[in-house]
Amino acid sequence: MPKTRLEAFSDGVLAIVITIMVLELKVPHSADLSALQPLLPVFFSYVLSFIYIGIYWNNHHHMFHVVKRITGGVLWANLHLLFWLSLLPFVTGWMGENHFAPVPTALYGTVLIMAAIAYSILVFAITNEEGKDSLLAKAIGKDLKGKLSVVAYAVAIALSFINHWIAAAIYILVALVWLVPDRRIERVLTPSA
Amino acid sequence: MPKTRLEAFSDGVLAIVITIMVLELKVPHSADLSALQPLLPVFFSYVLSFIYIGIYWNNHHHMFHVVKRITGGVLWANLHLLFWLSLLPFVTGWMGENHFAPVPTALYGTVLIMAAIAYSILVFAITNEEGKDSLLAKAIGKDLKGKLSVVAYAVAIALSFINHWIAAAIYILVALVWLVPDRRIERVLTPSA
Amino acid sequence: MPKTRLEAFSDGVLAIVITIMVLELKVPHSADLSALQPLLPVFFSYVLSFIYIGIYWNNHHHMFHVVKRITGGVLWANLHLLFWLSLLPFVTGWMGENHFAPVPTALYGTVLIMAAIAYSILVFAITNEEGKDSLLAKAIGKDLKGKLSVVAYAVAIALSFINHWIAAAIYILVALVWLVPDRRIERVLTPSA
Amino acid sequence: MPKTRLEAFSDGVLAIVITIMVLELKVPHSADLSALQPLLPVFFSYVLSFIYIGIYWNNHHHMFHVVKRITGGVLWANLHLLFWLSLLPFVTGWMGENHFAPVPTALYGTVLIMAAIAYSILVFAITNEEGKDSLLAKAIGKDLKGKLSVVAYAVAIALSFINHWIAAAIYILVALVWLVPDRRIERVLTPSA
Repeated sequence: MPKTRLEAFSDGVLAIVITIMVLELKVPHSADLSALQPLLPVFFSYVLSFIYIGIYWNNHHHMFHVVKRITGGVLWANLHLLFWLSLLPFVTGWMGENHFAPVPTALYGTVLIMAAIAYSILVFAITNEEGKDSLLAKAIGKDLKGKLSVVAYAVAIALSFINHWIAAAIYILVALVWLVPDRRIERVLTPSA
Repeated sequence: MPKTRLEAFSDGVLAIVITIMVLELKVPHSADLSALQPLLPVFFSYVLSFIYIGIYWNNHHHMFHVVKRITGGVLWANLHLLFWLSLLPFVTGWMGENHFAPVPTALYGTVLIMAAIAYSILVFAITNEEGKDSLLAKAIGKDLKGKLSVVAYAVAIALSFINHWIAAAIYILVALVWLVPDRRIERVLTPSA
Repeated sequence: MPKTRLEAFSDGVLAIVITIMVLELKVPHSADLSALQPLLPVFFSYVLSFIYIGIYWNNHHHMFHVVKRITGGVLWANLHLLFWLSLLPFVTGWMGENHFAPVPTALYGTVLIMAAIAYSILVFAITNEEGKDSLLAKAIGKDLKGKLSVVAYAVAIALSFINHWIAAAIYILVALVWLVPDRRIERVLTPSA
Repeated sequence: MPKTRLEAFSDGVLAIVITIMVLELKVPHSADLSALQPLLPVFFSYVLSFIYIGIYWNNHHHMFHVVKRITGGVLWANLHLLFWLSLLPFVTGWMGENHFAPVPTALYGTVLIMAAIAYSILVFAITNEEGKDSLLAKAIGKDLKGKLSVVAYAVAIALSFINHWIAAAIYILVALVWLVPDRRIERVLTPSA
């Protein structure tokens, strides 16, 4: 099975997820600058989720670049990842509209954890197929960054109920860590680097 | 006619259908955990429909992999399938918001039946073009699974008015049967398997 | 300039237009069968517009199959066509929700006329570039079907104010005429046919 | 890294942005022609934004045609551009629904400025990678048109608070300047032109 359509379908879903999130930014009736103020937390959570989707798309793009074969298991592992990412607009809107209240902030982290686990399952499904000596297996290695992210999300969820701003700060911090381009795959592709 | 654009258009429509369904999960105003409770049936029906669209995309992907020529008839048979799948967000929302009430649950099954029939017509349009000895015709065979699904949906529709939870259980059961990857096409492609 | 991205972008826009139209089918609060009755005209206008978008996608697909070069003029002629088609969800919803009332029905026809004219401009932009002896110019010929459609839409718009059901019937009739696959391009590609 | 998926993802996002803007054109309940009148400014702002997205897609299409390599920096510069363009539906709706009131009109210009700057950053990220002697660097040159646009937007934002119609007129004027196809890249590709 060629990988073209899996990539096209994933690009489509991620493009829609990243774009319909902006629909949560409801156009205010008043034309005053003050009408934008209640939208600020929604806008802020939109920026955060936009970056997260960008990171997932970026890593997805890098990963499938070195994938050779697609099996039924990989197709479903990929759909499972897209499922959790498709919930991001909902939790983004809920967290933003409630000014980062504890429960929505914890649920946002839960979706991030589930997406991270789904990504790990996808990586496992691919390396399982391609072999331990495959490019991807070498590139990902023990995936310390992935595992630490899950731990960080779990800590943030717990902290949501104590101080939800710390939880939000952790979500931003993890995003920044991932924003730094993941050179692992590029490194393996260019041995001299 | 090459098949690239038919695949791209279908991927686009299915990606949008699978993603706009999440818009039925309306962001609640309250930030309490209890605010999520009324959304549970909507969420559950979303998961079910997500899996169904995933199954259709998966099978569509497998089928067109072995298709060689696209004719006008195939284009319209494909659009006819997309039409019924495009109604899934509507019936998903109606069934979820009404907690799997009889009429919405029956209508959900009706759309599933129509989509299954539309898929059969698409298969017929393709095998009619490619010939009885084509890869696809051999792979699909008598399509017992497809025919049994239609019967199961019909039973579920009737049962919606007696016990709608049994109807919902049948929809889940059929989805699970299809979730098991359809090895028929892969089997024909690799004779040794 | 290669034509791949123009096709991909058009496929994307048409896939979204065809899918967001279903959002006009608002999920009713009641779970009774009678709750669907007020939705019937909306559903009917959805079916009609779905077929029209299908026809445009189909013809677009056939036309660009024989196009070799894309110029700036063709890009903008294509965007101009997509603009009018992007208004279809709005007029579809307005016509459906108002049970094919005169003004919405006339506006629906106006958008169909503008889309038909935009399509003719696109054909002209391409044949102008590819030459009068090009495959496309030969295939389209005098485009009698296109010209008659514009006349039929104009008649339907006028009749909207007298008997809007006749207007709706004309829209259906023109769609049926186009539903018959346009063999003109296939004919030129296969000289023996 | 090949550029196919970056182009596909960008096409997807722009196709969705250009199409969901039409959702701001809320279907009126009344079926009278007068019901359309309050929608006129929304429609007008939709046309303006449609043209702007068209221009960006057009230029994006031309630019990546001559790009050879995609790096992490280019991926993120591209996502940054898509972020600002994804805000266009929101500001378009706000400006339209408030009949081009000062603050929304100024915010519209702000998003246009940010998108223009993001485009410049993207151009810089690419030429930085491809070298000063690359096709793109030669084609863009000093990018006078891009710089003048930013100045024009800034002037329009300031004028929004004095006479918002002049601001709107400047947005239209800049769009018209860009509508004229950008022959710079085509010129470099065909030396004789």
